[in-house]
Amino acid sequence: MRNISLLGASGSIGQQTIDVLRNHPHSFRLVALSVGRNVEYAAQIVNEFQPLLVSVQYEEDVARLRALIESSTEVTYGEQGLTEVATLTETDVLVNAVMGSVGLNPTLQAIEAKKTIAIANKETLVTAGHLVTEAAKRNGVDLIPVDSEHSAIYQCLEGNNQQEVERYILTASGGSFRDRSREELKGVTVEDALKHPNWNMGAKITIDSATMMNKGLEVIEAHWLFSTPYERIDVLLHKESMIHSLVEYIDGSVLAHLGSPDMRVPIQYALSFPKRLDLKGRKPLNLWEVGTLHFEKPDADRFRCLKLAYEAGKEKGTAPTVLNAANEAAVAAFLEGKIPFLEIETLIEKTLDSFVTVANPDLETIQDIDLRARRYVQTLMK
Amino acid sequence: MRNISLLGASGSIGQQTIDVLRNHPHSFRLVALSVGRNVEYAAQIVNEFQPLLVSVQYEEDVARLRALIESSTEVTYGEQGLTEVATLTETDVLVNAVMGSVGLNPTLQAIEAKKTIAIANKETLVTAGHLVTEAAKRNGVDLIPVDSEHSAIYQCLEGNNQQEVERYILTASGGSFRDRSREELKGVTVEDALKHPNWNMGAKITIDSATMMNKGLEVIEAHWLFSTPYERIDVLLHKESMIHSLVEYIDGSVLAHLGSPDMRVPIQYALSFPKRLDLKGRKPLNLWEVGTLHFEKPDADRFRCLKLAYEAGKEKGTAPTVLNAANEAAVAAFLEGKIPFLEIETLIEKTLDSFVTVANPDLETIQDIDLRARRYVQTLMK
Repeated sequence: MRNISLLGASGSIGQQTIDVLRNHPHSFRLVALSVGRNVEYAAQIVNEFQPLLVSVQYEEDVARLRALIESSTEVTYGEQGLTEVATLTETDVLVNAVMGSVGLNPTLQAIEAKKTIAIANKETLVTAGHLVTEAAKRNGVDLIPVDSEHSAIYQCLEGNNQQEVERYILTASGGSFRDRSREELKGVTVEDALKHPNWNMGAKITIDSATMMNKGLEVIEAHWLFSTPYERIDVLLHKESMIHSLVEYIDGSVLAHLGSPDMRVPIQYALSFPKRLDLKGRKPLNLWEVGTLHFEKPDADRFRCLKLAYEAGKEKGTAPTVLNAANEAAVAAFLEGKIPFLEIETLIEKTLDSFVTVANPDLETIQDIDLRARRYVQTLMK
Repeated sequence: MRNISLLGASGSIGQQTIDVLRNHPHSFRLVALSVGRNVEYAAQIVNEFQPLLVSVQYEEDVARLRALIESSTEVTYGEQGLTEVATLTETDVLVNAVMGSVGLNPTLQAIEAKKTIAIANKETLVTAGHLVTEAAKRNGVDLIPVDSEHSAIYQCLEGNNQQEVERYILTASGGSFRDRSREELKGVTVEDALKHPNWNMGAKITIDSATMMNKGLEVIEAHWLFSTPYERIDVLLHKESMIHSLVEYIDGSVLAHLGSPDMRVPIQYALSFPKRLDLKGRKPLNLWEVGTLHFEKPDADRFRCLKLAYEAGKEKGTAPTVLNAANEAAVAAFLEGKIPFLEIETLIEKTLDSFVTVANPDLETIQDIDLRARRYVQTLMK
């Protein structure tokens, strides 16, 4: 039995994590969770799983949640609440499924408390990869990826020696607009952008997928998770999303992870690792039904965000923090209808250009730069 | 440094094994080898590698070989010679790359002498899988596959638990005639059949590939190598031969081994396992250059040999021995121009129908049935 803490229980990954826990009551126990403002959902989960602790975003929601729950579950809130959920004594594995950079501090605290980290929050590694991986190493803590691409690579490395890897190949579906030219991207709407062809995900990541920034963030994440230089990370366009990523070895062998697109696969693997459990309701991959798989090299001009991410990653220091913060601000503005789609990459590029990179930033510097980059994007839109 | 004995040094796998050894003089040392009648080739290899022992097929070639070699290498011959090569005290790994059932006895002897077995000889497992796997288990000996499909599966199992496998999926190129209808197969020539689209292999295996008997034998081999029922082994037509095979797990994860078709990859892996070594002159797999991969379900009527192999495998006992012996005899007859292509499967089917299956046969029974099945095919052709 593994005790699980879940940060971000009401998001897309959070809900699918709950589904995995629900299907394996003899393997996992939900001991703590956090939600944002969705108090009704939180109450439902608390009543079903009877965890020890639940945290909401705001103090004003505490009483409302308490009134809805039947168990003796403790209710807390805010940043301190997130950290309490992440570091609960009873917890074995922390699933970090919050969106944005808010997941960073609780994750660092959980690592110090020697919890295994199932990491679905890209920003944690993108903005503070050096701090997180150093802390994990020092505490002997496993960082297990939940992203389908990184989970694929993690699985293709099992039983192998990382010193014998030649290349990590992340696959990319190309997102909602993969078949549109740059010219055709000018007038796209929020609604168009939210229609991802393969995966069922949240709004922010679906937009990141359409701009390919999602893949860019994943490249940076892979750099940290697998301690590899950017020169060894390739991106491969593969529109069917059946091959989730690949690892090429020095002997010419390439190992790949395939499957029908289903986020519960990597989520469950991160929780059950190194074991595998039966996945209820899974769709077996019959490649003869798929018939054909397609592959293309991404076009660096067509996908400028990917190029920006490689550059920021290679520059290191606070550059990925600026990239990520500017992207979050720009995507939020696009989702609010304030800017056109192609303006996202322009805002990110301008922000990167105007920030001087600080090497080896500490947590405070990262949080400061993160805030300043977001503000800068706002000034650019005025 | 690993000491290698090589049975069948002058065949296709043998020569590629020599190439791997040549490229890694600090990792491998060739200590013993066998050839058939190619004395000049044997002399060249002996003079290059200076092994301790070399064996030829016939006594009459011994003096001729001795006259050609410069080192103090001992020269021996015949069945006894094969066994001496296989069981040499200095040997760590035996590569069994002879063709046909002649490899069986030396392999069993090598297992008793606790040598690691790199197994490229299908017939050894097809005809005596129960004896070989039982002996390997009893002696704590690793059987490492050299066939690209089984090597792929072996690699996809590394770091995983076989109890969590749902399905083994062997890929098949479909061979020289994959795009021809059954009707069009009637008049095909030996020359047509020998043109394999992807792999550079010997004549017998190229014909087996065209009839799909090669895949049938591999299914039986997989049954023994991975201790799995036939119900868990699937065959997938994949004409590019880029995915070499796949393993599906109970959590919906599918691991696959990919690469440009190059037999040196599985050969080298079998020798270097669990390490991987740099493969000189390897062609990196850039899927964007390939562009498209195709998959189909094999047609059981179009590929009758595959169906016959599944049936013989499930029947167990001496049925796979009869299948294999009848196939060897029929393919030889086709290569000699004595029978048309489609007669191969007819001869095998008739032979299987007329032999009563003996359960749990010992080595003597297997050898006896093997001989009788070959003779029976001859009588059918009269």
